[in-house]
Amino acid sequence: MILLDGKKLSQRIFDELKGEISAMKKKIRLGVVVVGKDPVIEKFVGQKKKAAEEIGIDVRVYPFDAAITTNELRKRIAKLVHEPHNTGLIIQLPVPAHINKQYILNAIPPEKDVDVLSGRAIGSFIVGKSRIMPPVAGAVKALLEEYKIEYKNKHVAILGAGNLVGRPIALWLLQEGVSLNMLTEDTAHPEQLLQKADIVISGIGKPHFVKGDMLKENAVIIDAGTSESAGKFVGDMDPESVAKKASYLTPIPGGVGPVTIAVLLKNLVALATGKK
Amino acid sequence: MILLDGKKLSQRIFDELKGEISAMKKKIRLGVVVVGKDPVIEKFVGQKKKAAEEIGIDVRVYPFDAAITTNELRKRIAKLVHEPHNTGLIIQLPVPAHINKQYILNAIPPEKDVDVLSGRAIGSFIVGKSRIMPPVAGAVKALLEEYKIEYKNKHVAILGAGNLVGRPIALWLLQEGVSLNMLTEDTAHPEQLLQKADIVISGIGKPHFVKGDMLKENAVIIDAGTSESAGKFVGDMDPESVAKKASYLTPIPGGVGPVTIAVLLKNLVALATGKK
Repeated sequence: MILLDGKKLSQRIFDELKGEISAMKKKIRLGVVVVGKDPVIEKFVGQKKKAAEEIGIDVRVYPFDAAITTNELRKRIAKLVHEPHNTGLIIQLPVPAHINKQYILNAIPPEKDVDVLSGRAIGSFIVGKSRIMPPVAGAVKALLEEYKIEYKNKHVAILGAGNLVGRPIALWLLQEGVSLNMLTEDTAHPEQLLQKADIVISGIGKPHFVKGDMLKENAVIIDAGTSESAGKFVGDMDPESVAKKASYLTPIPGGVGPVTIAVLLKNLVALATGKK
Repeated sequence: MILLDGKKLSQRIFDELKGEISAMKKKIRLGVVVVGKDPVIEKFVGQKKKAAEEIGIDVRVYPFDAAITTNELRKRIAKLVHEPHNTGLIIQLPVPAHINKQYILNAIPPEKDVDVLSGRAIGSFIVGKSRIMPPVAGAVKALLEEYKIEYKNKHVAILGAGNLVGRPIALWLLQEGVSLNMLTEDTAHPEQLLQKADIVISGIGKPHFVKGDMLKENAVIIDAGTSESAGKFVGDMDPESVAKKASYLTPIPGGVGPVTIAVLLKNLVALATGKK
């Protein structure tokens, strides 16, 4: 079993970006909207900030009170996206439940939408007109390519249909014409479908939901689910039993996570330079 | 085995729309862009025109020469969409191969895009912000609902990933959180996945590609593939052997086709009135 080293791959992407950024005449900046206070969110924002600053990208965090209304937040974001110093803007998810999330995400115009989460950005991505990919889809693609894992003629199962992992990955694979299974938490007998899959990509956010005996022998396992369990971040895969069954497996930490941040920053640089 | 009567369902939708339209103060009109001359395309346009006119919708066909360039066509369409008499505009597909199809489709703004084929319209549909559905997805949904066929907790297989049938249906089912299999022409051993599926929705456009022995006993079969074979329109299903295996089956003609036209016109009325 081979671990897919996301830390090493992300480092190489960061190094490349650092070179590109230092050669650029203008400063680039990532704006990060944070609504409410939450230690997990702070940790995620901290990771992005650190990675960005190390390669020469400014980060500006815009904190908002958890009690802000959807309308007020949308107005404030509409101003932030027009701030010329913000090369791109992201809204750190999750936002409080009373906020109309998609309405807020739609306030970001495609040319600043590094997360590819607004309706317009997703639409151009699906019809093949986007210069950037949703970060997690870009990360999975980069990991598969790095380890020369063929995926176009394989059966791929996606576990979870959320808008941060399952949906963008499904949209990407649909575009590639891949035969895929989409499973949700509500799928009865998920093992029957998982056992058919050469590649399993999971983003369901349930600690150690998938055990080795639910998988096909020598499957490629990409774990993009992160949940918090007893103060630690854990994935959807039960690492011990899955490691015995898989041919390739992404570790947590050090798997999909760091590559997703690298692709996010790569998107920012691409939007800044107009290059693919 | 029960045939899903698309003709009857479409007639009921047409009757409802006719009532709504006659109560409206303004005239509504569907603009149809046709590039080149082709008897099959003419037939499809003729069906839409007839159905629309019977319920009080004006249709205006804009014919263009097959040799028109992408840029010239885009310019002309940009003018047509701003023509206030056109409540909505569709581009009859296929267009000649030298035309950049998606670029042309993207010239239609979401508020006039009854076919939901521009990047922006698809994007709003995926994020749940669209007032209308891609016609074929709306047609399949209407047929399943009409016959009270439960689909949310079933395994659904979609055959074909094209932008007129497979893709919009996959996007709709993803939104509904349905567990789905996407198969393409290149999927090896499609029968292995088809035999797992409670519902098969097909839009691959290969005459009689699916035989009864590739299906699960009592599966629900929705045939949205149409191809021309010896001057006749035929579906993806081999009707004789599939009829022996299926619990429900859409006939051709009289299945998905007329309901798709009904949903297209329903979309036009929805865009005209601003209602869902």
